[in-house]
Amino acid sequence: MEKKKKVVLAFSGGLDTSFAAKYLSEDLGYEVHTAIANTGGFSDEELKTIEEKALRLGAASHASLDVTGDYYDKSIRYMIAGNVLRNGTYPISVSSERIFQAIAIIEYAKKIGADAVAHGSTGAGNDQVRFDLTFQILAPEIEIITPTRDMTLTREYEIDYLKKHGIEADFKKMEYSINKGLWGTSIGGKETLHSEQTLPESAYPSQITEKGEEHMTITFEKGEISAVNGKTYADKIDAIREVERLGARYGIGRDMHIGDTIIGIKGRVGFEAAGPILIIAAHKMLEKHTLTKWQQYWKDQIGTWYGMFLHESQYLEPVMRDMEAFLENSQRNVSGTVEIILRPYSYTLVGVDSPFDLMKTDFGEYGEVNKAWSADDVKGFTKILGNQMKIYHNVQKRNGAEE
Amino acid sequence: MEKKKKVVLAFSGGLDTSFAAKYLSEDLGYEVHTAIANTGGFSDEELKTIEEKALRLGAASHASLDVTGDYYDKSIRYMIAGNVLRNGTYPISVSSERIFQAIAIIEYAKKIGADAVAHGSTGAGNDQVRFDLTFQILAPEIEIITPTRDMTLTREYEIDYLKKHGIEADFKKMEYSINKGLWGTSIGGKETLHSEQTLPESAYPSQITEKGEEHMTITFEKGEISAVNGKTYADKIDAIREVERLGARYGIGRDMHIGDTIIGIKGRVGFEAAGPILIIAAHKMLEKHTLTKWQQYWKDQIGTWYGMFLHESQYLEPVMRDMEAFLENSQRNVSGTVEIILRPYSYTLVGVDSPFDLMKTDFGEYGEVNKAWSADDVKGFTKILGNQMKIYHNVQKRNGAEE
Amino acid sequence: MEKKKKVVLAFSGGLDTSFAAKYLSEDLGYEVHTAIANTGGFSDEELKTIEEKALRLGAASHASLDVTGDYYDKSIRYMIAGNVLRNGTYPISVSSERIFQAIAIIEYAKKIGADAVAHGSTGAGNDQVRFDLTFQILAPEIEIITPTRDMTLTREYEIDYLKKHGIEADFKKMEYSINKGLWGTSIGGKETLHSEQTLPESAYPSQITEKGEEHMTITFEKGEISAVNGKTYADKIDAIREVERLGARYGIGRDMHIGDTIIGIKGRVGFEAAGPILIIAAHKMLEKHTLTKWQQYWKDQIGTWYGMFLHESQYLEPVMRDMEAFLENSQRNVSGTVEIILRPYSYTLVGVDSPFDLMKTDFGEYGEVNKAWSADDVKGFTKILGNQMKIYHNVQKRNGAEE
Amino acid sequence: MEKKKKVVLAFSGGLDTSFAAKYLSEDLGYEVHTAIANTGGFSDEELKTIEEKALRLGAASHASLDVTGDYYDKSIRYMIAGNVLRNGTYPISVSSERIFQAIAIIEYAKKIGADAVAHGSTGAGNDQVRFDLTFQILAPEIEIITPTRDMTLTREYEIDYLKKHGIEADFKKMEYSINKGLWGTSIGGKETLHSEQTLPESAYPSQITEKGEEHMTITFEKGEISAVNGKTYADKIDAIREVERLGARYGIGRDMHIGDTIIGIKGRVGFEAAGPILIIAAHKMLEKHTLTKWQQYWKDQIGTWYGMFLHESQYLEPVMRDMEAFLENSQRNVSGTVEIILRPYSYTLVGVDSPFDLMKTDFGEYGEVNKAWSADDVKGFTKILGNQMKIYHNVQKRNGAEE
Repeated sequence: MEKKKKVVLAFSGGLDTSFAAKYLSEDLGYEVHTAIANTGGFSDEELKTIEEKALRLGAASHASLDVTGDYYDKSIRYMIAGNVLRNGTYPISVSSERIFQAIAIIEYAKKIGADAVAHGSTGAGNDQVRFDLTFQILAPEIEIITPTRDMTLTREYEIDYLKKHGIEADFKKMEYSINKGLWGTSIGGKETLHSEQTLPESAYPSQITEKGEEHMTITFEKGEISAVNGKTYADKIDAIREVERLGARYGIGRDMHIGDTIIGIKGRVGFEAAGPILIIAAHKMLEKHTLTKWQQYWKDQIGTWYGMFLHESQYLEPVMRDMEAFLENSQRNVSGTVEIILRPYSYTLVGVDSPFDLMKTDFGEYGEVNKAWSADDVKGFTKILGNQMKIYHNVQKRNGAEE
Repeated sequence: MEKKKKVVLAFSGGLDTSFAAKYLSEDLGYEVHTAIANTGGFSDEELKTIEEKALRLGAASHASLDVTGDYYDKSIRYMIAGNVLRNGTYPISVSSERIFQAIAIIEYAKKIGADAVAHGSTGAGNDQVRFDLTFQILAPEIEIITPTRDMTLTREYEIDYLKKHGIEADFKKMEYSINKGLWGTSIGGKETLHSEQTLPESAYPSQITEKGEEHMTITFEKGEISAVNGKTYADKIDAIREVERLGARYGIGRDMHIGDTIIGIKGRVGFEAAGPILIIAAHKMLEKHTLTKWQQYWKDQIGTWYGMFLHESQYLEPVMRDMEAFLENSQRNVSGTVEIILRPYSYTLVGVDSPFDLMKTDFGEYGEVNKAWSADDVKGFTKILGNQMKIYHNVQKRNGAEE
Repeated sequence: MEKKKKVVLAFSGGLDTSFAAKYLSEDLGYEVHTAIANTGGFSDEELKTIEEKALRLGAASHASLDVTGDYYDKSIRYMIAGNVLRNGTYPISVSSERIFQAIAIIEYAKKIGADAVAHGSTGAGNDQVRFDLTFQILAPEIEIITPTRDMTLTREYEIDYLKKHGIEADFKKMEYSINKGLWGTSIGGKETLHSEQTLPESAYPSQITEKGEEHMTITFEKGEISAVNGKTYADKIDAIREVERLGARYGIGRDMHIGDTIIGIKGRVGFEAAGPILIIAAHKMLEKHTLTKWQQYWKDQIGTWYGMFLHESQYLEPVMRDMEAFLENSQRNVSGTVEIILRPYSYTLVGVDSPFDLMKTDFGEYGEVNKAWSADDVKGFTKILGNQMKIYHNVQKRNGAEE
Repeated sequence: MEKKKKVVLAFSGGLDTSFAAKYLSEDLGYEVHTAIANTGGFSDEELKTIEEKALRLGAASHASLDVTGDYYDKSIRYMIAGNVLRNGTYPISVSSERIFQAIAIIEYAKKIGADAVAHGSTGAGNDQVRFDLTFQILAPEIEIITPTRDMTLTREYEIDYLKKHGIEADFKKMEYSINKGLWGTSIGGKETLHSEQTLPESAYPSQITEKGEEHMTITFEKGEISAVNGKTYADKIDAIREVERLGARYGIGRDMHIGDTIIGIKGRVGFEAAGPILIIAAHKMLEKHTLTKWQQYWKDQIGTWYGMFLHESQYLEPVMRDMEAFLENSQRNVSGTVEIILRPYSYTLVGVDSPFDLMKTDFGEYGEVNKAWSADDVKGFTKILGNQMKIYHNVQKRNGAEE
């Protein structure tokens, strides 16, 4: 008897990947090894449930791959350093996770000597590109199988198919498709499919439970979060979760992302991301105090592209490593504590305390008489600063072309 | 008897310029012509009061120069088109006004044949550069006099000096220095002089009067505001004021700007700008629906610099005219209505209705099975999209340098 | 009898499109209408020969579409304004032509009511993308047929096929594939397929005939070429051809472009483009004298992207129109005459004569004692200019972190 | 008797600094310590002569500070990595040297406990800013004295003054002011003061001695020059000198820089820099083969600013350190050998041999039938690539606004 070919299936426990698990073994004859890559969005319990589902579907093996640490070290850290908010709002929550899930899955497939790898993304979104591209780059020799995308099946068909193969499960259709992760939760469906409406209050997983105001602090050490409300966290991931928890009670970090997908169409998706939004806001404020004008300018330039590339599945493009070198280097003075007021739906950045604060100098103070330069110095400065414009307007006048 | 030399004094009615009015005539022997350039921040009543003060101080003449229309046409329009928010928050409210005030003052000085022009800015801020630079470029032949900056006088000295010359007025020291304009109000003093604290509620001129939620709409026509809550405004300035009025009741648009001044030091200033913040937020959202990815990218690039140059008194730099050409051209499809929910301290962008909405196409929809391309097309796309990265990683592997 | 479907074939007279002409009618049953879009690379004689070939191959009709004027107005003009040299060397000669050829072909197809359009590009280069993309955008309803790409045929097969259908022609294999156009000639083959060698002297269509030195002048009027050696040209295209003629005799403008194709692989191609290289060099030098520092900086930014988008078949992306608005506006003062010395393989820019020259001012001169500012002004300028760096280094020292 | 205050004078041996040496001691009563910072432009003999002059002028001590190694490590290395050519032509030869000379001088002044530091720059150029700024940042406590700038003296006055103090020397006025350094020689005067003419052949220090053609190779190792014509150099500086020697015989690297000075006026300066021009050309070509499209794009962006900041005396701005981190990281694969043909006035880049060449892959080849993707893949790619433009043009048509 011929040995069966091995496939690793990126398995979430949902209808599409449950169908795929069965279909890959029954119809395509593969030995199916399911795997889930956890970037911080799943609890141990959830992972246990997913494993049980996989085995019930006849998976030859199931693996829970924990890559939360990697995800922080190789991506979240730089997204904070770069203040990455796509289109000014979206902390590319799901986008960045997918890459690290894809890397974990393909590395696992290589490790167990799989012949193929499968995922359940559809043909209309960004995720298919993220999975395919990452798989192809890191393991060009491994075949990619995508039943959901290729077969365009209905829910009914998939449920029937599973029933026929003895799997009775409650795959209830959710009103919204929700993707929860360490760096934010995305919410798609209904209102997000059109341009005119926003999500109702009830669509958000985290409901507002606090009414008043609350002060909190976030402390950074060389651009990395190190403490929340004065408590130091050895594990950055715990610190992020704590900020998320504090902010979520106030409904902070909710917004709608309207973006251009990798495949060129526009898409809308709601999200809640109290942690990322508060951390980036605090980090950016700290940088306003500790970095020079041109450091901030260049960080914006690089951060914008770092986010764009990450979002568009270009994480493995070598220019990303060059950008990370820039971003890391830029954080050498980004240390200090930022105070924030939380209130329902919004927050206020109170202020900053940092030994590297460029406002804290005996050198010269804004709006005050200062000791480091004289009125005449500024007059000279302004005279010279205007030289080229003066020459330009002088030449225009000479040519009768004053605008 | 020798004819007195004429000076035009940019006059606000405050202590510094009141002192200057007297000082220029009494000590320097000038015939003093006061002028105030209104960019939309002063009511008729306030202008009347200022005029009376000027004449009481012995001004040979006083002029109220209304440049609100010019300010809108030559600057606000482009700041909206460019979504200009300095450092991500500040609608460069005061910064942009100063330039148009300076232009109005120097043009007036040229018109009445003045020998000199005077302003009351100190030696520690941005405004001195804005006035000096604009004056020098547009009238290099006119001398600039700046008593406040040159003499570093105390309030007491100035008040005494005025008393000695028969002027008894109530120049009470305000806790905060407030600058109100069409495009926002700035609030400086106390907390803003250091890094740690934010302004107290009471420091804001507009107090929050509304508690619940309220829906509103802003309509744009080729990037310019044309209607608010369905009511069309012939004068854009009235439309801006209406948005300001609506938002100010909720305390929207309050923030602290931490910026790098033209002279290289960092400064903090509070502001409230409900109008600018809501208009730019709505405009940007409309652009997310009506512009392509690369139009948005380039508008961000140009808008950032347009704002930086405007802020840093480079309005007369000819590259600004090139940028305006770009910005104006980019607005040809930016027409439609944006719905917003207002609530205390915050707002939510609900959605957009526009005939140019790139989401509204029968072409292909995000997250849905589509008719314009197949799963195979995306597979091909992804294959080719990854080519260079695949080659790179292939070459790395060949060199034993896989990262 | 059923009416035959119409196809418009982009026809060059070469082996691939000759095969396609026959194949489309014989095997696919189309009524074949050939067309060639001339962007300035073909003489009347060449066009006549191509027409005869088409008719001999049984084309139902043949059209020579002259779009040289359009090509200049809509592209060359902006490539000059933007000083577009891809990767610092290549005036995207062929790349830009293809777009205007594609537009002409598809507009013609729409005009004669064609059901399909065909081109002869292979599956390994940029041209296929340029044709497909332009066709799809401007006429999504018209089918695209690409026999060369789809069938991967050998030369022998194509020649046999033509013979079988009664066409005996001398399709001799050229050592190099040469593409001659108004904006430069590209030369591919042999050495260009690998990284180590350059083209031999004999591969260049224009051979060096001059040995000494020769002075020439190019005059611009608002960024457009208006005269060569003092002779005014009503038609810019004639002026371009004259510069090309003068420079080609010296072998000027030869180089190798190493570029990243749209499909992600690297490619090399030789070119000779005396006209574009001399015109852009002269234009850029004139801009160094007539534009401010920041105008030049922004023109470089925009020009780089304008060239990249044009090269990568994104000419119809709406951001291109915004960039053209910027570029056009920036040329208002770019008028004057540039003198150049030509010599074998190289040239020297002698100097510039322009009424808008920002060096020609009585305002202040480089290296000379000047009247517009004093030594003290520059000292003040430098003091203030260094403020932020001084504060930074002061803060570093305070933290014991001086670098 | 009061102890004399110490001044360190940046001394070149020319008329201005000779005058300054005497003037500082005789008129200002300083104990004068002269110093020259050699960044590679001076031979041991020249340094010896300068030292003798200094001592003859009565200097209390003289120091020759060799900072060539530092200059390479901290600047030239990054200028090569960034392919820095200001305005597309000028390898900022003098500009970059001045910074390292200034740093060496001020560090020396601190070391010997000087109260003041003096330099001989005039008030019309860039160098005064470079010296002042660097001095102020690194030693705000040390006074800066600049007799040449402050006193605007004539040559005759200076010569007379020296004679009066017993110094008879042959300070002959040179036709051109020449500044020779490791990274190029600048030539100013006569033609460079106006816009219309270029320098005559005779003005260039290196005369053309070779007539024919010559092949050479430059080898790079991680972006740094490592061998010339196959000979490995332990000291990069010797390798640079060898390339300079080879190219100078052909008059390669001559050009005129037209630039915007730090103080806002335009200036022209001739230069010859065979070494920098050939090294950067070869390095850039190697990068075209070994870096991805986006690495090249970002290196251009960063390189442009790195050059601008260095030129404009912003070397100590902390963003420069971030840029250096980016540039250094980007060079990890920039290893290989570039072949060049030298001929009078010009050179041709022949080709590249590198293990990291992204063209050298069995993956897919330009212009060839390939194995890594099919015609259908490219069709799918193009379909998706055009999505947003298709939607845009579709929406335009729907609105009757097709452009």
